Amino acid sequence: MHTPPPLSYSAICAMMGSPVPEGAPHIMVAGITTLEEASEHHASFVARAKFAPKAAESRAGVILVPPHSKLDRPGVVEVKDIWGGVLTLLEYFHPVPTSTGRIHPTAVIAESAQLAGGVEVGPYAVIGERVRIETGAIIGAHCCIGDDCAIGEGTRLYPRVTLYHGVAVGKRVIIHSGAVIGSDGFKYEAARMKLCKIPQVGNVVIDDEVEIGANTAIDRASFTTTRIGAGTKIDNLVQVGHNVQLGRGCLVVAQVGIGGSAKIGNGVILAGQVGVKDNVTIGDGVRVGAQSGITDDLPARTDWLGSPAIPAKDRARVIAIEKRLPEVWKKLGPMLDEPGGKG
Amino acid sequence: MHTPPPLSYSAICAMMGSPVPEGAPHIMVAGITTLEEASEHHASFVARAKFAPKAAESRAGVILVPPHSKLDRPGVVEVKDIWGGVLTLLEYFHPVPTSTGRIHPTAVIAESAQLAGGVEVGPYAVIGERVRIETGAIIGAHCCIGDDCAIGEGTRLYPRVTLYHGVAVGKRVIIHSGAVIGSDGFKYEAARMKLCKIPQVGNVVIDDEVEIGANTAIDRASFTTTRIGAGTKIDNLVQVGHNVQLGRGCLVVAQVGIGGSAKIGNGVILAGQVGVKDNVTIGDGVRVGAQSGITDDLPARTDWLGSPAIPAKDRARVIAIEKRLPEVWKKLGPMLDEPGGKG
Amino acid sequence: MHTPPPLSYSAICAMMGSPVPEGAPHIMVAGITTLEEASEHHASFVARAKFAPKAAESRAGVILVPPHSKLDRPGVVEVKDIWGGVLTLLEYFHPVPTSTGRIHPTAVIAESAQLAGGVEVGPYAVIGERVRIETGAIIGAHCCIGDDCAIGEGTRLYPRVTLYHGVAVGKRVIIHSGAVIGSDGFKYEAARMKLCKIPQVGNVVIDDEVEIGANTAIDRASFTTTRIGAGTKIDNLVQVGHNVQLGRGCLVVAQVGIGGSAKIGNGVILAGQVGVKDNVTIGDGVRVGAQSGITDDLPARTDWLGSPAIPAKDRARVIAIEKRLPEVWKKLGPMLDEPGGKG
Repeated sequence: MHTPPPLSYSAICAMMGSPVPEGAPHIMVAGITTLEEASEHHASFVARAKFAPKAAESRAGVILVPPHSKLDRPGVVEVKDIWGGVLTLLEYFHPVPTSTGRIHPTAVIAESAQLAGGVEVGPYAVIGERVRIETGAIIGAHCCIGDDCAIGEGTRLYPRVTLYHGVAVGKRVIIHSGAVIGSDGFKYEAARMKLCKIPQVGNVVIDDEVEIGANTAIDRASFTTTRIGAGTKIDNLVQVGHNVQLGRGCLVVAQVGIGGSAKIGNGVILAGQVGVKDNVTIGDGVRVGAQSGITDDLPARTDWLGSPAIPAKDRARVIAIEKRLPEVWKKLGPMLDEPGGKG
Repeated sequence: MHTPPPLSYSAICAMMGSPVPEGAPHIMVAGITTLEEASEHHASFVARAKFAPKAAESRAGVILVPPHSKLDRPGVVEVKDIWGGVLTLLEYFHPVPTSTGRIHPTAVIAESAQLAGGVEVGPYAVIGERVRIETGAIIGAHCCIGDDCAIGEGTRLYPRVTLYHGVAVGKRVIIHSGAVIGSDGFKYEAARMKLCKIPQVGNVVIDDEVEIGANTAIDRASFTTTRIGAGTKIDNLVQVGHNVQLGRGCLVVAQVGIGGSAKIGNGVILAGQVGVKDNVTIGDGVRVGAQSGITDDLPARTDWLGSPAIPAKDRARVIAIEKRLPEVWKKLGPMLDEPGGKG
Repeated sequence: MHTPPPLSYSAICAMMGSPVPEGAPHIMVAGITTLEEASEHHASFVARAKFAPKAAESRAGVILVPPHSKLDRPGVVEVKDIWGGVLTLLEYFHPVPTSTGRIHPTAVIAESAQLAGGVEVGPYAVIGERVRIETGAIIGAHCCIGDDCAIGEGTRLYPRVTLYHGVAVGKRVIIHSGAVIGSDGFKYEAARMKLCKIPQVGNVVIDDEVEIGANTAIDRASFTTTRIGAGTKIDNLVQVGHNVQLGRGCLVVAQVGIGGSAKIGNGVILAGQVGVKDNVTIGDGVRVGAQSGITDDLPARTDWLGSPAIPAKDRARVIAIEKRLPEVWKKLGPMLDEPGGKG
């Protein structure tokens, strides 16, 4: 583990493109952490206004703050793009590992596979026939890459990822441990006098800069392509059914389940444990609250909540009323000749 | 990849047992896909009447349709068992891989394990003591098979499946990547003045022709057997607790959770994200809607919906009323001397 | 498989600290199982009063019962700590495997890793730089242990567990197959004119005697530590977000999802499929019913149910009223000039 040298307050100001104030204090920091955890040897940051009081109490040596912050203490650095500033410090103190270019001797790689220069392959990885892997990709230990897969430049598979055959993964994609991409869709039909499995002969395409969480499963299409759009981020333990078309720049939180053939637009947010029925179409920019169940098509730029989901504002009112049902019931019951009070 | 030769319209008619119409067009197709995706070099099919309009617009060279379909265009083939016909074409164009009979030299196989002839074992698979594997089985790369397991004829384990010790898997079973069968049930009891883990000393039996999805977990029984009945299909990311008795021919959709010791009949359908409480008994042919929670025994051939589940018809009415609660509340509030309108 | 010799009724009385009654029958048992499954060669037990009728019908040779049980048949042994007694017999007939101390020659172990004597490492395990593993630990086949991890005395990792770098696991912890510990938290922020991944540079600490289920995912902290308190038991397919602080002695049932930065007290019970919103604080001893959604802080020693959760007693009343909504609606509709009966 190479530890990067500490940074001075002035150096940080320079990295952030902020003027170094006169009489700048001589402060050195060796890492970045939260306001609570920080010692005088750490940088920290105020990501939202509500954290400003914590900043006043923090022992952090350097604090990145948004412009016009009224924080008056040594070590403050005003940064317009606050998360951009945090990223800059994170990248300095915790550089993202890049490919070592080493192929571990225990990796089992088919002769017909084509690995570009600069690809790293971990111990015991198994790479199938005609697989193509572009430069800078990292294939973790124990990954199983099926025949005819393609993996783009700079993509990283953590240990123990499975790609079934014919899965195409774009550039700078991150796939976490235990994820399974390209398993069979869940499709059985009455045929030949019994329930028969319908072979799933499509594939999966993962576009550039997607991230896929630990133990997530994405099924291959029945005939065509299950597609995850560029820049979409999928959390852990998510289920994506066959033929799903998931748009660009979506956020899909942990344990969401997306039914087969659902079409989901760009910039959609599905909160944790949401379920989307098969064949549903969801418009761009839709936001769905946690644990909701989507059973019908949703127009673009709308918010939904509940199982089954209704517009989020209506659901908030239903929830408020629902909580008061017992007391209303007491008054209402007698009016209806009902034993309401005992309900 | 061996590509099967194209099929003529007449050949397909013959395969389907349909008469070749006079003046049959000379059409050749090289694959099968959906009506939308098909080019003139593809076969396609009308699985449900509602897709008939798409068939009229499809460019597919050959289209399988149900009898008495009014579709009037070249290349139509009437097939009584439509999915049977689709299967026939899928099997022709995409033959299911069978065992190569090769044992990869890196597989670690206990001396006491007995593998029949014609078993395929992938790279880095680990097979424990006294395991028996029948002919035609395929054990994918990186599978871990515990001591005393049995795997039936023609069963396929995709890469990275774990069977704990003592798991018995029937014939023609398919288990997808990441599935874990035979892990300990979740059982802790107050003993010896603290909360103690109760060792789980039972096993798991998977009957013939079961399919188990990616990253699904099935726990071993406390003392006896967790059983998955013949022909039951389990989707991805499903949890099956210890001692569960799951009947024959059930469909268990993704992310369902079945609590310990639940007894589920034959032909039961549990839609996505359903939860079943431990110790519940569910009768044959019960159907449970997505995201429902089953807290009580359910009689055979009934439909349920919601959390907690009530009969599906009643739930439909509750949902309809619930949506209107805010407007009703506005009228009702004043009658009850309640500030209803602000609820 | 070494089979322990059978036990006599008198020997079991002695193991339980119970006096051997005069004229004790000569009974030998070779295992322990449920009342229904037991033959005369098995011991069994009455764990709860409601199972007493089953005990009368059971063929079990020996039955452990609580004090003052009125069960009158041969082979009864009164035991004050009933589960303690069951554990004693389980430990006799099914001794928990301990480390063989063997390092499989195929394991890939970094030179800088430090393994104490008596550590078992299975085939194809991969152990990173500077990892420390204490005596008696068992690292299953195909486990991937990242750099700088620590694993305590007597801890067992079943096959196919992933620890990302920097994960610290305590003593006598059990982690089941497919679990992923230390994956990146789900954190993206607007920065540099687009949505950027915020690198997750914290770690995970798993305290002593925790159990973690199959295919569960626990994310590393953004900056600090995701912590699972001592003695906490986590079931299969659970999601634990970044920065979560989970207390001591909690029970987290299958498919629960815990949002990032949630703080959960000691002795909390989260039933199956519960969702906890990010940043929520839950007090000690809270119990949350299955499928509930926790959106706000919860005070200690309270019970909650529903999505969104309300106090469990109130929810029970809401559920009871909700079921009757259709009939109430019929009466209420006309009063409000609503077409209620058709709702």
